[in-house]
Amino acid sequence: MRTVLLTLVACASCWAQATDCKPSSLNIPGAPYPCVHPDRSVTFRVQAPEAQKVQVRLGGTHDMTKGADGLWTATIPPQVVGFHYYSIVIDGAVVADPATRTFFGSGWDNSGIEIPEPDADAAYYSAKDVPHGQVSQRWYYSKVTRAWRRCFVYTPPEYDANSRSRFPVLYLLHGWGENEQGWTTQGHVDFIMDNLIAAKKAKPMIVVMDNLNAVKPGGDASLYAARGSLTQMNVAAAPAGGGRAPAGGRGGFPSNWGNIFSEMMLADLLPMVEHTYRVLPGRENRAMAGLSMGGMQSFLTVLGNLDKFAYLGGFSGSSGGRGGFDPKTSNNGVFADAAVFNKKIKVLFLGIGSVEGPGAKNFSEELTKAGIHNVYFESPGTAHEWLTWRRCLNDFAPRLFQ
Amino acid sequence: MRTVLLTLVACASCWAQATDCKPSSLNIPGAPYPCVHPDRSVTFRVQAPEAQKVQVRLGGTHDMTKGADGLWTATIPPQVVGFHYYSIVIDGAVVADPATRTFFGSGWDNSGIEIPEPDADAAYYSAKDVPHGQVSQRWYYSKVTRAWRRCFVYTPPEYDANSRSRFPVLYLLHGWGENEQGWTTQGHVDFIMDNLIAAKKAKPMIVVMDNLNAVKPGGDASLYAARGSLTQMNVAAAPAGGGRAPAGGRGGFPSNWGNIFSEMMLADLLPMVEHTYRVLPGRENRAMAGLSMGGMQSFLTVLGNLDKFAYLGGFSGSSGGRGGFDPKTSNNGVFADAAVFNKKIKVLFLGIGSVEGPGAKNFSEELTKAGIHNVYFESPGTAHEWLTWRRCLNDFAPRLFQ
Repeated sequence: MRTVLLTLVACASCWAQATDCKPSSLNIPGAPYPCVHPDRSVTFRVQAPEAQKVQVRLGGTHDMTKGADGLWTATIPPQVVGFHYYSIVIDGAVVADPATRTFFGSGWDNSGIEIPEPDADAAYYSAKDVPHGQVSQRWYYSKVTRAWRRCFVYTPPEYDANSRSRFPVLYLLHGWGENEQGWTTQGHVDFIMDNLIAAKKAKPMIVVMDNLNAVKPGGDASLYAARGSLTQMNVAAAPAGGGRAPAGGRGGFPSNWGNIFSEMMLADLLPMVEHTYRVLPGRENRAMAGLSMGGMQSFLTVLGNLDKFAYLGGFSGSSGGRGGFDPKTSNNGVFADAAVFNKKIKVLFLGIGSVEGPGAKNFSEELTKAGIHNVYFESPGTAHEWLTWRRCLNDFAPRLFQ
Repeated sequence: MRTVLLTLVACASCWAQATDCKPSSLNIPGAPYPCVHPDRSVTFRVQAPEAQKVQVRLGGTHDMTKGADGLWTATIPPQVVGFHYYSIVIDGAVVADPATRTFFGSGWDNSGIEIPEPDADAAYYSAKDVPHGQVSQRWYYSKVTRAWRRCFVYTPPEYDANSRSRFPVLYLLHGWGENEQGWTTQGHVDFIMDNLIAAKKAKPMIVVMDNLNAVKPGGDASLYAARGSLTQMNVAAAPAGGGRAPAGGRGGFPSNWGNIFSEMMLADLLPMVEHTYRVLPGRENRAMAGLSMGGMQSFLTVLGNLDKFAYLGGFSGSSGGRGGFDPKTSNNGVFADAAVFNKKIKVLFLGIGSVEGPGAKNFSEELTKAGIHNVYFESPGTAHEWLTWRRCLNDFAPRLFQ
């Protein structure tokens, strides 16, 4: 009796809520679920008529309930605004929700949901009636990795309008498990730049978004492959001797990590960009930034090549913040002479979500104590997610090439 | 005993085959399955530890077998070369295989597999050491649909290399349930055009790929939404009165179908393209083609606007071939005077896969009988799938703007 009553209450609540919600903007055309309520709780629905157990994974793992119509539903607690990856678990199988568009994260095409912000807060990454640039897919051959690579290149509205103009370049990287599409699809880099440029808050610039995964033939690609519950299925027990053992957790990077990307970027990507696009020459017209693992890669590349870059940004990822920073020796001593460093790097930017922990703030304070000029930016209320990184870019880009 | 024996045989066969297969090029990084054998049979593997029944849907529906390792596998019969959508069914839930990249088809992000052709056959849609153009994502506002729309625009290598040059334009559409990304991700439009242009087989041209779905505010979008098993889950029983009744099967288009796209294309897309890109003016520099439903749309748009286009292509889709073609009255009589029509439309192209049935061939013969010049192209051994349409484009593009 108690079970029946609870079931009825749960169902009534479900359907009552369902009348006041809006389908996520990332749903496939016509799909009413996932549906976001005014309090930012979310109702999910899955068709799995013969399944024993269905769950939705967003934040935690939430059990779904099978209704009289044979559809599984769950309404989960209010979520933080912004973009979240999520997945569905059907009798132990972790899959994407077929009701949403997919987004490449954690090494596979996962479901995504956008919990909307108030219009005013979302304006900077929304399409507005301003001149629009474009994002171009560009293939090039890398001699370092001996493979074809793909990057995406944002060019500002001025690029097409004035065929003689030249522009500075921001190289912008995604995070672990993502790829070169992330900044466009999850990050809305085009709308952010269009809006900043239209408001004259940022200089018109080119933004190059490459894939931070770079492996030489025969090299170990496991650092870039899917992990967790997907690892067992997809990566382990490969046929024909292709088994790959994941190289530790996300904190366990091998000591030579990132060097091949830096080599590839300087030998292949940068020359291709400067040959193909109308760019302004020299280090003062080059910036590099990235999120999470891409932030670490940016610090590695720029701090090892101060003759080539004048701006550096780490969004929830840099080279410090875990304690043990010694300005005399860290990163081969580039911070040892603060005056020299400050003259070379015009903006050193450290961004973070307020709920991500004190790492970036600590690193910023250590740098300041060592006399290194830097900008610390904190995104209020957000975690290690794309809304943090949209906000970082929106704060970082206006500081470039001034 | 018989069951045990069959299981053992099945398993042995599985693993024996697994040593001689190659992971599909569309797998996520590091994923060994789906894996394609030399005879083009394919082994799939899914992790669904608590599922009762797991199947793979490609062509037919194939039961998978749970192995001692708890993973489900199936090896399905040899497949036709080219790109195929497929899905996994886990206890009745139709989902994408998390081991592959997803591709928008049938209205959702479905799994995709590429059954490789011999290198020589695949060369025309593969990356080669030739000058490369780029595909750009472009947002624009439509006054007709009162919404932001996205298109993709291929510009040839010459476009960036010579800032004064102008180019003719091919408008190229996807099929039902797909979107403006299809020609790039499933079709490899960029490599096909790069290779044709490098070989001087095709004139350098711009290719504009828009979304054929166009609905005015409050209009019925059901024709463009997901169908079949997904319909029930995603589209029916929408909350807050948003229920959508699919408008008949794929053959049952309403009589005014496609008119809004034509209106939007001529009022919004075409002016935006001609304002933004360096295009050659006039009807003799404009072509339109599409696949399946996009072919029907191309016929509707071009035959209704002969003052604006001089080239027309239907890939597995046109306005005829179902019998009852009357040159005097069909399409408002545009075919009535063959000499006038032949002077206006320089190339009328009808492409089809050889196993798709006689519709396109019949239509071609009816046109020829009526004195209408046309090109009939048949892709050997392929069905209503992307390899047919890659081959169509490869044959069609060289005929344009000569």
